[in-house]
Amino acid sequence: MPRFDTPQDPLFRRINASLGFDRRLWPQDIRGSLAHARALERAGVLDQDELKVLRDGLGRVADELERGEFPFDPEDEDIHMAIERRLTELVGPVGGKLHTGRSRNDQVATDMALYVRERSERAVGLLTALMSTLADVAEQHADWPMPGYTHLQRAQPVYLGHHLLAYFWMLRRDARRFLAARDAATGEMPLGSGALAGLNWELDREGTAAELGFTGPAPNSIDAVASRDAVLDYLSAAAICASHLSRLGSELVLWSSQEFGFSEPADDFSSGSSIMPQKKNPDAAELLRGKAPRVAASLQTLLGVLHALPLAYSKDLQEDKEALFDAVDTVETCLVAADRMLAGTRFDRAALAAAAADEFLAATDVADLLVRRGMPFREAHGVVGSLVREALQSGRALSELTEDELRSHSELLDAEYYEVLASDAWIESKLSAGGSASARVAEQLAAARAALAELAG
Amino acid sequence: MPRFDTPQDPLFRRINASLGFDRRLWPQDIRGSLAHARALERAGVLDQDELKVLRDGLGRVADELERGEFPFDPEDEDIHMAIERRLTELVGPVGGKLHTGRSRNDQVATDMALYVRERSERAVGLLTALMSTLADVAEQHADWPMPGYTHLQRAQPVYLGHHLLAYFWMLRRDARRFLAARDAATGEMPLGSGALAGLNWELDREGTAAELGFTGPAPNSIDAVASRDAVLDYLSAAAICASHLSRLGSELVLWSSQEFGFSEPADDFSSGSSIMPQKKNPDAAELLRGKAPRVAASLQTLLGVLHALPLAYSKDLQEDKEALFDAVDTVETCLVAADRMLAGTRFDRAALAAAAADEFLAATDVADLLVRRGMPFREAHGVVGSLVREALQSGRALSELTEDELRSHSELLDAEYYEVLASDAWIESKLSAGGSASARVAEQLAAARAALAELAG
Amino acid sequence: MPRFDTPQDPLFRRINASLGFDRRLWPQDIRGSLAHARALERAGVLDQDELKVLRDGLGRVADELERGEFPFDPEDEDIHMAIERRLTELVGPVGGKLHTGRSRNDQVATDMALYVRERSERAVGLLTALMSTLADVAEQHADWPMPGYTHLQRAQPVYLGHHLLAYFWMLRRDARRFLAARDAATGEMPLGSGALAGLNWELDREGTAAELGFTGPAPNSIDAVASRDAVLDYLSAAAICASHLSRLGSELVLWSSQEFGFSEPADDFSSGSSIMPQKKNPDAAELLRGKAPRVAASLQTLLGVLHALPLAYSKDLQEDKEALFDAVDTVETCLVAADRMLAGTRFDRAALAAAAADEFLAATDVADLLVRRGMPFREAHGVVGSLVREALQSGRALSELTEDELRSHSELLDAEYYEVLASDAWIESKLSAGGSASARVAEQLAAARAALAELAG
Amino acid sequence: MPRFDTPQDPLFRRINASLGFDRRLWPQDIRGSLAHARALERAGVLDQDELKVLRDGLGRVADELERGEFPFDPEDEDIHMAIERRLTELVGPVGGKLHTGRSRNDQVATDMALYVRERSERAVGLLTALMSTLADVAEQHADWPMPGYTHLQRAQPVYLGHHLLAYFWMLRRDARRFLAARDAATGEMPLGSGALAGLNWELDREGTAAELGFTGPAPNSIDAVASRDAVLDYLSAAAICASHLSRLGSELVLWSSQEFGFSEPADDFSSGSSIMPQKKNPDAAELLRGKAPRVAASLQTLLGVLHALPLAYSKDLQEDKEALFDAVDTVETCLVAADRMLAGTRFDRAALAAAAADEFLAATDVADLLVRRGMPFREAHGVVGSLVREALQSGRALSELTEDELRSHSELLDAEYYEVLASDAWIESKLSAGGSASARVAEQLAAARAALAELAG
Repeated sequence: MPRFDTPQDPLFRRINASLGFDRRLWPQDIRGSLAHARALERAGVLDQDELKVLRDGLGRVADELERGEFPFDPEDEDIHMAIERRLTELVGPVGGKLHTGRSRNDQVATDMALYVRERSERAVGLLTALMSTLADVAEQHADWPMPGYTHLQRAQPVYLGHHLLAYFWMLRRDARRFLAARDAATGEMPLGSGALAGLNWELDREGTAAELGFTGPAPNSIDAVASRDAVLDYLSAAAICASHLSRLGSELVLWSSQEFGFSEPADDFSSGSSIMPQKKNPDAAELLRGKAPRVAASLQTLLGVLHALPLAYSKDLQEDKEALFDAVDTVETCLVAADRMLAGTRFDRAALAAAAADEFLAATDVADLLVRRGMPFREAHGVVGSLVREALQSGRALSELTEDELRSHSELLDAEYYEVLASDAWIESKLSAGGSASARVAEQLAAARAALAELAG
Repeated sequence: MPRFDTPQDPLFRRINASLGFDRRLWPQDIRGSLAHARALERAGVLDQDELKVLRDGLGRVADELERGEFPFDPEDEDIHMAIERRLTELVGPVGGKLHTGRSRNDQVATDMALYVRERSERAVGLLTALMSTLADVAEQHADWPMPGYTHLQRAQPVYLGHHLLAYFWMLRRDARRFLAARDAATGEMPLGSGALAGLNWELDREGTAAELGFTGPAPNSIDAVASRDAVLDYLSAAAICASHLSRLGSELVLWSSQEFGFSEPADDFSSGSSIMPQKKNPDAAELLRGKAPRVAASLQTLLGVLHALPLAYSKDLQEDKEALFDAVDTVETCLVAADRMLAGTRFDRAALAAAAADEFLAATDVADLLVRRGMPFREAHGVVGSLVREALQSGRALSELTEDELRSHSELLDAEYYEVLASDAWIESKLSAGGSASARVAEQLAAARAALAELAG
Repeated sequence: MPRFDTPQDPLFRRINASLGFDRRLWPQDIRGSLAHARALERAGVLDQDELKVLRDGLGRVADELERGEFPFDPEDEDIHMAIERRLTELVGPVGGKLHTGRSRNDQVATDMALYVRERSERAVGLLTALMSTLADVAEQHADWPMPGYTHLQRAQPVYLGHHLLAYFWMLRRDARRFLAARDAATGEMPLGSGALAGLNWELDREGTAAELGFTGPAPNSIDAVASRDAVLDYLSAAAICASHLSRLGSELVLWSSQEFGFSEPADDFSSGSSIMPQKKNPDAAELLRGKAPRVAASLQTLLGVLHALPLAYSKDLQEDKEALFDAVDTVETCLVAADRMLAGTRFDRAALAAAAADEFLAATDVADLLVRRGMPFREAHGVVGSLVREALQSGRALSELTEDELRSHSELLDAEYYEVLASDAWIESKLSAGGSASARVAEQLAAARAALAELAG
Repeated sequence: MPRFDTPQDPLFRRINASLGFDRRLWPQDIRGSLAHARALERAGVLDQDELKVLRDGLGRVADELERGEFPFDPEDEDIHMAIERRLTELVGPVGGKLHTGRSRNDQVATDMALYVRERSERAVGLLTALMSTLADVAEQHADWPMPGYTHLQRAQPVYLGHHLLAYFWMLRRDARRFLAARDAATGEMPLGSGALAGLNWELDREGTAAELGFTGPAPNSIDAVASRDAVLDYLSAAAICASHLSRLGSELVLWSSQEFGFSEPADDFSSGSSIMPQKKNPDAAELLRGKAPRVAASLQTLLGVLHALPLAYSKDLQEDKEALFDAVDTVETCLVAADRMLAGTRFDRAALAAAAADEFLAATDVADLLVRRGMPFREAHGVVGSLVREALQSGRALSELTEDELRSHSELLDAEYYEVLASDAWIESKLSAGGSASARVAEQLAAARAALAELAG
């Protein structure tokens, strides 16, 4: 820098440089530079020949980067400077005209917006694939009874397909969040905001925005370079999505335990132990679970960086990148892994059914029998609670209580009590919309397919 | 509970109970209970007389709560149980019928969705008010020059109105996030999902959803009671919004310093010192800044609670409430305070103008002069950098360099150099869309007014 | 405040005031004020009569606060001002002398240090009680076999006592952290630092420090009022401790499931369901688990508040209090609840033993048999892996493989193989220090008792 | 793994593998393996020849790693497996004996403890260097007056040396935390805990602990492999330290602004602007500020990973590494950068002095003058507040009020009032211990030197 007496200290250059991590932004940077060059030509800053030279040069730079043959220089501070430096090497001084009417501040903000847009769309694609697998697996297990849990206690029986579809709807909400992040990253193009105050050149920002797929130019140049809202939107969507995946991973770990025995991971998504030869560990499910906090931490990092930060651009904003890139890589990997892992998981119908045959799961149904005979629910709840207690204390199942015992608890109880306890009826009684009865699960699957079609469409 | 031998331990009851903080949900609980009672009547579980008794009873309960005369009982575990208990005291055993086809799990989830919806709308209202004040204050100061900053170094001059409007657009994005949170909380009604599996009663969920203003019933009963996505959406919007406010607060603290001297808080939004009689502290701005981390922490809390949590409902989910309520109270207070504080802030035109008259702010414009004469920008940047260095080393302003000195740096420099440095032209040269030139700020104000109309409409 | 024209806005007063939450600091404030008054007397600022009046007055104020009869005033901004205001009401203008040589900045920092010190000691006391219960329960179950888990897969058998003692050592580390927090809060007395620069009075800070139990005065007045390190130390200890308790809670939830069936919570620490009469939910264990994130969030809040905050005192620092108080209340409650809950938990010896009898748990021991016969461990691991695979594929237990089959895998295998699989030997073979063999568990219990004695001593 | 039918899926292998980041643990792994081999020899598992072979082999592996010539294999899952695999290639099947009596679980935990110990000591070393620089710079500016600030308002004058020393004491507390983290990582050696239950071999854990510099073996094998407390201790120390550095960075950014003008970064620690030729940005200070949230996020990540995690080892624990390594790299870099940057910062004595000459800074001293004449402080505060108001309203300095005006506010005011306002006396009046008077700053510098000697000793 001409105004400085001494060159930058190597340590400073190292901490200041972002090339180590921002080089992945090169496609966005090239794309933005091409659009900017065209705007300069429309404004008369470049003539048509110069534009052609710059376009060809940028094309050659892109090729070099694509092929991994780009000659990085130790002096390159970031990918933006590296590209401009290389461009000038290739095309001569006219390369120095590209930065007319542009600052790294609006350039970086634009690259990040383009990047967030692409990764948001990628996340939606991966979510759609995982949701599709979930719908398939749910359909295949649509009539496999299992216990539904609250407080990790067996509560009421459900179908495995119904349980799995719970994740489908979580992920659909995630897809909506990523779509919102994409829209946020599409709404306001930073390019043309300059360092912070706008440009001395009346460039055609509307045209550039259209070319780059933005709805329009950012309305305020200071906000455009100072904000990282699009990144926050992505990170927020990613943190919530990762939290959903952690619940799925947690359940698969649980179900893979010998005690539950509900499922077994595929061999190719498991690992053994360095010491215990019998072990088959659900590592992929554990990683799905264990990766969520780092995504939430990325969001927290950026919120922390922005805390109390004066406008407009400050160097602190460079911290947005590693936080975002780590979240992108983590979430994308987790989504693919969840899809593959789920597709390979083998469920054990007998183990699930045995657990679902636990008579206590029918307690609510017995209470509802009393309600249908006129007893207020709160009172029926008490009667059945007493029956449960009597059964537990005498070490019997509910169906082993005698009719006399039943009647001592309530006059309204008779032999239909034993019918209610007959297992296959319980799930089917959950006939309300969104419930676990077969017809409702079928409805839900149809709705899921429709939701997928909408996402894909 | 009938199935237990011993009553709950007082310590356990204390940690288990949520009445201390969930009582603010009573309006939502009453509203949901009324709609549920009507659904029970449509399904034939209640007859019309019973429905009337329950409606009247719920009305009396609501009155008691409204007037602060509700007789809470030490045994009340939460607001839901308290209301049902009181209802039964008032109307007799028929009160016990209200909980037919309902579980606290879907009841709480519904109350929370209704609450999130209301608070999201409230947040949008408060944002709109603050944005309106921002637009007004920006308009009043639309032509007050001040330095724009990057890295907290004077960079290029802008108008104060332009700087303030940067916050306007941040807040508009916040409003959109709260609207999305509202929509998320409106989309899927949990009520009718029962404990987790659905109901033994085919209640008219569509009708209840319509009555409560939901788009429709939640499609999956397990997801409906296990998820806290609507709360996450609110918290995410709140955390980002609070981060924006922290930047505003931080700048007002900075500007209130004697060194900047750009603004002074109103007396009625300041405090003094217990020991230093001369102090006038910008406490409100500091709190705006200092409150942001607790909102981000609320989001982090709920993400942490959900981490690895098996489906469906677990008691851990009760931790959603204090996190949400604290964020609601904090963000709403901050929004009102920001509005009031901003309206009362006095800006110092002379101090701003003096800072904006710093000639170095015109360095980019001098470079652009060279560009207009054909020099590539990168080279022009170097020439001006040398001029700056020469001025600094000789202790002069840029305008004190002689024409001979200028020419020794570049043949392209002549007397127009001095014209460029003539201060009032600098800001107006930022004529690109979204820039700081007066015409652009006027455009922006018009766009801001239109955005406000859209939010209010 | 005399320098202001207009009184504070009610909204501002509300957000600015901290009396709603800082009133719990009154004992610390009184204690600090008494010591300060004595220092003023030693310095000649107060005469002996004035000192007596102030001491008596502060005693009366403390009595009022103790009895809940202190007349708070809507104008009281915080507990410090409330106490001084009331003191002056009681003793007249001499009350106004108490604030000589003191600022709210050093006063609050001192109160917080005293508070952190007391709560750290309280935490150590509660930890000691819980550790004592853990040692007792471990001793009672010192020879109950159960499976040890890695990846939630049965890995090797251990004794329940051994497993429970794992928590003992985590909590001992927590106790050490709280002791370090106490020491940090004891090292440097802020009082006497004034607003930030020190005092115009050469007060005897050494004497005051000794009186208040500090090691000495803080060496730098600016640091003394600007830092919240003692609070951070407490919060860090609390966050880690809560994370340990969340693991304990998580395991108790797991073990209470029907699938594990290893333990059952006491009735008085459980709750039922509003809809399912059979449910007995381990709510206390769930809350132990679910409360950890809010404690971590308190730490995150304060780190966030301190981020980038210029020295010395800023109003943002007021945000330390609610974060700390919530963490204190949460951790103290969780520690008591964990103690009580654990003491009441009933373990099921038969269920644990049945799970521990899983022959696959002996796979490592079979490998070690081969090692003792000269085979490198890595090779032995492979041989046993093949045996496991053969058993699984043919649906047999390891002990059902024939000697011929064994020999087809390795010449080194003979009838001792079956002896190794004989269950009761497995745990006892873990004879290394810290291992699960009975003698080692006994050693460990003795070490635990010694550690308790050290903490209590 | 022999028990599996199909090889691991490449995607799974990629997410499961940790070699990409854990290879930096190789020195710790080699060191632990050497000690383990010796313990195996002492226990008779290896004979002396085998031990020699393994030692030589491990030496060769270490050399390869040191020289960057280690032949990594795509199948290597982590650094531990890579080293054992390579060892066996080099020395034959005897390499397979090294893993006798060891599991990756206790191996990794041991490597991490050794690593935390080393990095904690490194952090203490870097802190000592920075503290030494702070003491030097403080000494050089021990008598440079500047305003001390509260609420970023000028409050009372201090010496720059005094202000800088505030950071010295923060960092000393940080050093103590890192020393505590080192001690925590030194107390309990995991090695010898096996997978979770201990070993079938009675290895001499005491001897190995002594050899590796641990106080002793971990007392509980389950805790030893399940806990990451040492990492948490490091991260907690790092997060607090980073928060201190963020405050330093924030102040240097502030002071470098044209408005403050108190300091200027060295050219070699600054950067320019891509568009504005005049800019000299304090990037290093901004990064010091902006890096803190990512360190806090690493702590949050690990607390999140541990949340609710059942004992003993789970794969989730692998997430400890990247969180730790990023924090180590960030904090170490920031400490070095802070040291270098501070040493190169140029302070502007005139600018500081001009700001410190603001008469309002003497307001407390005027109040104390009244106190010395018998007026209670609270009343004196009021009198001076009125004087300040009168001065402000009439646009005068405090010293421009007439004696008549003074007396109209208080009979006790006379000509000494003007003497008090004579600037050079103000700072020196802060004569209490730890205050800003020269003698006290000198005392403090001596204490700082003593603290440095203690840390270095």
